[in-house]
Amino acid sequence: MKEYLDFAIEIAHYAGDKIKSSFLKDKDLNYKSDRTVVTDIDKDINHYLIEKVKEKYPNHAVNGEEESFNNSSNYVWVCDPIDGTGMFTAGIPLSVFSLALVIDGIPYVGVVYDPYLDMMYTAIRGEGAFCNGSKITVNKLHLGDLGYRLNYEMWNGSLYDTMHIAKNMLDKVKISSIGSVARSCMAIATGNFSCDLFPGTEHGNCDIAASALIVEEAGGKVTDFFGNTQRYDDAIKGAIISNGVSHEEILEQVRSAIK
Amino acid sequence: MKEYLDFAIEIAHYAGDKIKSSFLKDKDLNYKSDRTVVTDIDKDINHYLIEKVKEKYPNHAVNGEEESFNNSSNYVWVCDPIDGTGMFTAGIPLSVFSLALVIDGIPYVGVVYDPYLDMMYTAIRGEGAFCNGSKITVNKLHLGDLGYRLNYEMWNGSLYDTMHIAKNMLDKVKISSIGSVARSCMAIATGNFSCDLFPGTEHGNCDIAASALIVEEAGGKVTDFFGNTQRYDDAIKGAIISNGVSHEEILEQVRSAIK
Repeated sequence: MKEYLDFAIEIAHYAGDKIKSSFLKDKDLNYKSDRTVVTDIDKDINHYLIEKVKEKYPNHAVNGEEESFNNSSNYVWVCDPIDGTGMFTAGIPLSVFSLALVIDGIPYVGVVYDPYLDMMYTAIRGEGAFCNGSKITVNKLHLGDLGYRLNYEMWNGSLYDTMHIAKNMLDKVKISSIGSVARSCMAIATGNFSCDLFPGTEHGNCDIAASALIVEEAGGKVTDFFGNTQRYDDAIKGAIISNGVSHEEILEQVRSAIK
Repeated sequence: MKEYLDFAIEIAHYAGDKIKSSFLKDKDLNYKSDRTVVTDIDKDINHYLIEKVKEKYPNHAVNGEEESFNNSSNYVWVCDPIDGTGMFTAGIPLSVFSLALVIDGIPYVGVVYDPYLDMMYTAIRGEGAFCNGSKITVNKLHLGDLGYRLNYEMWNGSLYDTMHIAKNMLDKVKISSIGSVARSCMAIATGNFSCDLFPGTEHGNCDIAASALIVEEAGGKVTDFFGNTQRYDDAIKGAIISNGVSHEEILEQVRSAIK
């Protein structure tokens, strides 16, 4: 797995350079049906990954937010070239690159790169989570403890009403919606945030495959909105990403809101 | 007013150095009743401002988020030493320093400083808005246009239900809640965001006195939640900060939600 991790880190550096060098510059913008923006930089990074996988691991597949390749392998590189493109285009420095190697639906290698702070978050299944080589861990806060931050994302047409769920917990948490679930997950993995509610379904695995592994390896817990573990090489059923402490309690809130 | 602007910029540089040099370092954290965090850095910057005002403008007052001085002047320096302290403590680089000179309730000079991107946003009433010396303007997007971003903040006990209002407009906007209304306002002033709903009341003027001026001077519009202009040297009644284009339409949404 170490070789795969090195490969992922190499792609992450390419992506980080692209993101940083085009930040605050004029870009071609296109919009998807859910009002999400996409730029040429997203497409470039996604395409670069496919070319590199074809070159080095021609039997592997790529499942990308913007472009995919070969859907007949059980080794799938799952990628969100820029998680938080909206913030990227708005000149707010918190978007990240995300890449996981998912084998038979399970992430074994995960890399999330924050080019603004030059922080490379990495994990190999069973070997812990790291930021720039230093071990990272989730915090131990319970729902209701001071400092407990719940981040959530929501957009037009998202299947689950995360705003409603977050509002129901307003007396127990500080809320935010920073526009990048992967960046929020890295805040969880380093003990800064405590939970994220992500209502992604179609392509939702691209946003969080790497983050799910990194948070779990940092001691946290990740399930879908029904409390189950799920595959990360296909559409997901939302994701609750937490420090693990109050996961069941949050799951109850989610369940009662979406039933 | 140019002299006052220079004074405000000098304080902003001091604040920016403090914020940057303590970012990602361990800090003493304290919490307010609304779960808002405050650090020694907030208090230090606020106190430094008071010392400098005493020295240079002993007849002026300071109305600070953490500490105030002399409430008997009609010249009031209104300051939020770190707007977005929660994100600052979580290692997310988007908090800003905010300072306005408010005379008889009206901001005449405004400075917001983003130390992470080294961007100094400035305005003198009637003379336009600038970022690092270059003129900035709001965008011309209508509610419903692709790329229209509505940011909002909300916390436990906030008087107005901005989440509810934002959700009602989900088919017309992208939403976020980035944890710093002043940073969001600067995104409006530069044409990146289009609107912000801020439910602040007590001390709410500290968060947005400078931003209100800068956004107006960039061509935008700022009212309270009832459509009125308001004083910025005392508690406010929430704030709608927009590019000005769909302000009335948003005001209708706010009005119907809070009546």
